[in-house]
Amino acid sequence: MSLYIKHKELLTKAVNAIHERTFFAAYPEHPSPSVYGETADADGRKKFQDGLGKKFEGLKQESPASWVGVEESPYLQEPLNIQYPQFDTETLVQRAETAFHQWRKVSAADRAGILIESLERIKARFFEVAYATMHTTGQGYMMAFQASGPHAADRALEAIAAGYEELNRFPAGVIWDKPMGKYNLKLDKEWRAVPKGVGIVIGCSTFPTWNSVPGIYASLITGNPVIVKPHPGAVLPIAIFVEEIQNVLAESNLDPNICQLGVDTFEKMNTKELAEHKLVKVIDFTGNSKFGSYLEKLDGKSVFTEKTGVNSVILDSVDDVDKVAANLAFSLSLYSGQMCTAPQNFYIPEEGIDTPNGRISFEDFAEKLIENINGLADNPKAGPFVLGAIQNKLTCDRIAEAEKLGGNVLLASRSIENPMFKNARISTPVVVQLSSSDKSKYNTELFGPIALLIKTKDTKESVALAKEMALSQGALSCGAYTNDPDVKEFIADEMSLAATPVSFNLIGGIYMNQNAGFSDFHVTGGNPAGNASFTNPEYVIKRFTWVGHREPAKS
Amino acid sequence: MSLYIKHKELLTKAVNAIHERTFFAAYPEHPSPSVYGETADADGRKKFQDGLGKKFEGLKQESPASWVGVEESPYLQEPLNIQYPQFDTETLVQRAETAFHQWRKVSAADRAGILIESLERIKARFFEVAYATMHTTGQGYMMAFQASGPHAADRALEAIAAGYEELNRFPAGVIWDKPMGKYNLKLDKEWRAVPKGVGIVIGCSTFPTWNSVPGIYASLITGNPVIVKPHPGAVLPIAIFVEEIQNVLAESNLDPNICQLGVDTFEKMNTKELAEHKLVKVIDFTGNSKFGSYLEKLDGKSVFTEKTGVNSVILDSVDDVDKVAANLAFSLSLYSGQMCTAPQNFYIPEEGIDTPNGRISFEDFAEKLIENINGLADNPKAGPFVLGAIQNKLTCDRIAEAEKLGGNVLLASRSIENPMFKNARISTPVVVQLSSSDKSKYNTELFGPIALLIKTKDTKESVALAKEMALSQGALSCGAYTNDPDVKEFIADEMSLAATPVSFNLIGGIYMNQNAGFSDFHVTGGNPAGNASFTNPEYVIKRFTWVGHREPAKS
Repeated sequence: MSLYIKHKELLTKAVNAIHERTFFAAYPEHPSPSVYGETADADGRKKFQDGLGKKFEGLKQESPASWVGVEESPYLQEPLNIQYPQFDTETLVQRAETAFHQWRKVSAADRAGILIESLERIKARFFEVAYATMHTTGQGYMMAFQASGPHAADRALEAIAAGYEELNRFPAGVIWDKPMGKYNLKLDKEWRAVPKGVGIVIGCSTFPTWNSVPGIYASLITGNPVIVKPHPGAVLPIAIFVEEIQNVLAESNLDPNICQLGVDTFEKMNTKELAEHKLVKVIDFTGNSKFGSYLEKLDGKSVFTEKTGVNSVILDSVDDVDKVAANLAFSLSLYSGQMCTAPQNFYIPEEGIDTPNGRISFEDFAEKLIENINGLADNPKAGPFVLGAIQNKLTCDRIAEAEKLGGNVLLASRSIENPMFKNARISTPVVVQLSSSDKSKYNTELFGPIALLIKTKDTKESVALAKEMALSQGALSCGAYTNDPDVKEFIADEMSLAATPVSFNLIGGIYMNQNAGFSDFHVTGGNPAGNASFTNPEYVIKRFTWVGHREPAKS
Repeated sequence: MSLYIKHKELLTKAVNAIHERTFFAAYPEHPSPSVYGETADADGRKKFQDGLGKKFEGLKQESPASWVGVEESPYLQEPLNIQYPQFDTETLVQRAETAFHQWRKVSAADRAGILIESLERIKARFFEVAYATMHTTGQGYMMAFQASGPHAADRALEAIAAGYEELNRFPAGVIWDKPMGKYNLKLDKEWRAVPKGVGIVIGCSTFPTWNSVPGIYASLITGNPVIVKPHPGAVLPIAIFVEEIQNVLAESNLDPNICQLGVDTFEKMNTKELAEHKLVKVIDFTGNSKFGSYLEKLDGKSVFTEKTGVNSVILDSVDDVDKVAANLAFSLSLYSGQMCTAPQNFYIPEEGIDTPNGRISFEDFAEKLIENINGLADNPKAGPFVLGAIQNKLTCDRIAEAEKLGGNVLLASRSIENPMFKNARISTPVVVQLSSSDKSKYNTELFGPIALLIKTKDTKESVALAKEMALSQGALSCGAYTNDPDVKEFIADEMSLAATPVSFNLIGGIYMNQNAGFSDFHVTGGNPAGNASFTNPEYVIKRFTWVGHREPAKS
């Protein structure tokens, strides 16, 4: 049975899901023994631990130039000492180009079958991926499992489905039959979806699989070979994905170099060399705005970026101020604000926030937010697991700088104890009060657990500032709280003009940071936070070209 | 009855047609009295003639800064002396921006109804448009009618249909209902297709409506206001389109500035000022590669270009050499090679071309081609009408230069008499023989009736050169003649990698120059001939951004 036939039902469901945009998940997000097996967690942990200090031998890429690896665990603050095969740029690109001419001739259906099969194989390694993610990114266990495992696999499946649909959008061939009066002019026409060529996918340190697999699978489904260039600090989680993709390719008698891992080190980065190589035609990137903007300007490449942004929260009126403060405190604390969708700028009117019980002042709201942040951090059953650890030491420097920003530091950052990892790098959120006139202090991304409470004249100014930040700095998310339908539509309309999705009035167990596969577009592509979106039609269409050939019909 | 309801059936047919890609035409291409009315031709001609030497008063754009007009008839070599209202860039853009916030809130269905209605109004003016096109572009009567009238209207309808489909691709809203074990998490989600903002459409001198209306209607259907910036030498045909769009907008109680005409003169071009204006977000362009490439690099704009290319003909083997020579002679002569899809480089193996009756040598084929060119030019019932007139004097200079290229001039260009227009600017095709080693002589576009017959080692070299030209210079079309299925697939595959559509073995009344709406993608977007394609999904999708908002479901 072909892999396409094996996975056809799931593929069809996924294609439907991207249109319906209701809840759909192919991979259960809960690390439940009843779903994944009684020993899956322990087995995954052991497999991760057994790999430490060794060569990563799972790849089918021959004759490495050297073996390198510089990953460190933010929980242990120790190197993992895993070594990955390293190749020079020319070798990677030439192998990809050779593989290209094989892969582009594989049918879209067969590609889909192979790629979904790889996700099924990875499913069996979700726990191993989770521990790999914890000890490279600093994510808490639950996020590491969900984001790098099932949620990433769902977003990969979404990209496969979106690509598969686009590849089948036009007929492979038709007879074009034009009445000319006394006779008909008949042409036999065919259309080919021609892949652009070698793709590279440049990963980030905080979400090494979730942010990379959409690009990997989108390029692969559309017939482009892919070189996966992970962040040197977060290789292992995505290396496992590449290993399984290569396994399925090899079993299908295809060149495993259709998907290669192309690691580098901080000392000798290969990213620019790869990106500028003339045979590289497709680039996916998650990371800083400067490098992303450089990539976007490269000639003759299809470039997909997720860069950085300043995410806003607009507070106008609320039903239950305590629930709002709790929700936002969690959004801020989750993975220590290291999500690209985490809120940073909180706009609060100087007159305060309307509630059914009267106005709550700026100061009182700030106090409630701080209480909730502290309550969460100091809850030993929640704090360490929600906050996780800080991936990059530079983020700690940024937190320190935020305290010297010149605002009123309402809450200083501190560390808490993680009972399992005594040496974990932990920083709780810092909260700084600013005035709307301090624009130079808040009009830039301060990545990490940094909250700026900005006192505005009124909601109108709050919205104007949130919109301005999105248009000038980019934004991936926006939270807004209002009970007034007119204000709500005003916010929805203004922020839509800044291409920023708004989560209104979230309380309870759902947060503005979270974007669900098959439903929420992640990044819109319409503001400086990035030019691409998981997974809108543009995300797959730009990876190939429709070319039509024709000839007189035989009949 | 709303205009949407009125035109719903046609819209549905058009949406189906872009998927089926079989023959579909909403506007009959033949200027038949039985279709368009007994007096339509005479009425259209009179209306055109009555407008000469006068102000073009049909637009609803108030308070022009001045009235300008520099059009000249290539048939009369005299100015038309039609004056158009002229506005400064800031006025055009600010009016467009104001109109934007009205137009973007009109539903996709209502926009479609309004836009299709405008095409129906223009249908009643096809003959006037035809004479306007003849006397600005130099096209022959039949091409002027077909290309600027029904074929342009069909491509406009295609863009409306493609946009309408994309705008309806995702649900306006859904309840996202996620099972969480003991409860369900329910979010009320909505998606908005947010238009990018003010669009400009920069026209060319040879196809002032056909090349511009896809961009105009694609931007309008997706909610963007449009400033139409025609080539100063070819304003009238598209001014009539803008007039009718404004009429329907005004009748629908909408701001006519949703679609403005923004003319300029050769002395003071406004194109760069418009393109670089920060409120201009969408740019459509047809014209030279240098300016097109400059536009493509502008920051923060969605840019759609059709630039120039070197179109190839690959001659490997033929069934009937006379029919092939006749077909290619017509392709070369049609509108004097001033179509962007006209062939330029003919690759012929030094060993000659295989036929069922043995090989025909390079020289014999050249002779047959020349005989057919001369036969067509000297046929008084065909020559003047097929050749039309030369739009731009510079094209005549280019023909003279081609004769001095250093190749063997097999046929010199000359003039012929047009009995209706004694003063018409006419040049028959020049045919120059080159060797494949003369690459510097043939690796650039020589716009106009210029054919280069290039002697190659064999078909493999022919294909390699055609591919190289397409990849380095761009190509919009390719003609190929072969009876060998393997050679055919080799050409189809190689040229598809250069994103160039191939017309195989065309003989009789169908030519490689012709691209049909709803079936042939015009330009692929995948080589330097342009980054856009009439009308693939990318052509409409990049004009708006999907933005999703969400909130807890009420229930």
